Amino acid sequence: MNDITYRPIGNIRTPFKKQEGMPIQPSGAKGVRGTIKLNKDYIGGQKDLEGFSHIILIYHFHLSQGYSMHVTPFLDDQPRGVFATRAPRRPNAVGLSVVKLNGVEEDILEIENVDMIDGTPLLDIKPYVPEFDAQTEVKTGWLAEVKGQAKQVKSDNRFNSSKKV
Amino acid sequence: MNDITYRPIGNIRTPFKKQEGMPIQPSGAKGVRGTIKLNKDYIGGQKDLEGFSHIILIYHFHLSQGYSMHVTPFLDDQPRGVFATRAPRRPNAVGLSVVKLNGVEEDILEIENVDMIDGTPLLDIKPYVPEFDAQTEVKTGWLAEVKGQAKQVKSDNRFNSSKKV
Repeated sequence: MNDITYRPIGNIRTPFKKQEGMPIQPSGAKGVRGTIKLNKDYIGGQKDLEGFSHIILIYHFHLSQGYSMHVTPFLDDQPRGVFATRAPRRPNAVGLSVVKLNGVEEDILEIENVDMIDGTPLLDIKPYVPEFDAQTEVKTGWLAEVKGQAKQVKSDNRFNSSKKV
Repeated sequence: MNDITYRPIGNIRTPFKKQEGMPIQPSGAKGVRGTIKLNKDYIGGQKDLEGFSHIILIYHFHLSQGYSMHVTPFLDDQPRGVFATRAPRRPNAVGLSVVKLNGVEEDILEIENVDMIDGTPLLDIKPYVPEFDAQTEVKTGWLAEVKGQAKQVKSDNRFNSSKKV
């Protein structure tokens, strides 16, 4: 299949300058504030976002290098299929976080609950809509036993990149 | 900023051979079944997914052509900033849907609530985890008044591509 090329629409600025000590999910980054700086070519696209309390960020794990089909997640002690984890080292190093949107001003978006490393290239912003995105009667496999830990566990260097379960 | 290149990990097969008449979100595609066919290079990555009831699909709107900073969504009658919509015509034509996972067998994943066009290139699969992905006390801006309609409204050709609000 053909390769697909994307161009960052901006950058995510966060307090996390290195991966060690980072939260591994927004649930562990409650209250941590950051900003999105939109590149000037994309100004205008943020119109109407101010009415939304949460947005979905799709971004590139730019520090992630290589991948394998199995990975031992931060939250577990045995290897799991990479698609059953949120690890940054994945075939396409694309990341996803739902964050709180506190303010919008032309090319700057104020956000909260950020769990990505400073300077992360942003690929897309979508409005978070519970009717589309939230599910009920959910089972979470291997994570079910350990997921409460995501609030405490911090990243180490095992992915040579950013973070994520 | 540098371009980012991804390579599809597989394809999504759905009953929707053309965009007209497609659901515009999984909430309008309840019960519609499809499959993911993983490319052989990525077999193994699906291990441990079988314990999850829902997965997040990140895919490429391969039929989407061009974009502008404002778009009139299916669900509305006035132009909105593209990042405040789920329209496929966006700067990076990346799509996101949460679907039900019914079964996993090596390179085939059986899924439900599919709202993408047949043959859509898949970029990533992530486990859906409410603690990370579901939000409470949500406001949904312009969509708040019209979002119930997403279950009824079907796609037309306005995006010359697939669908999405």
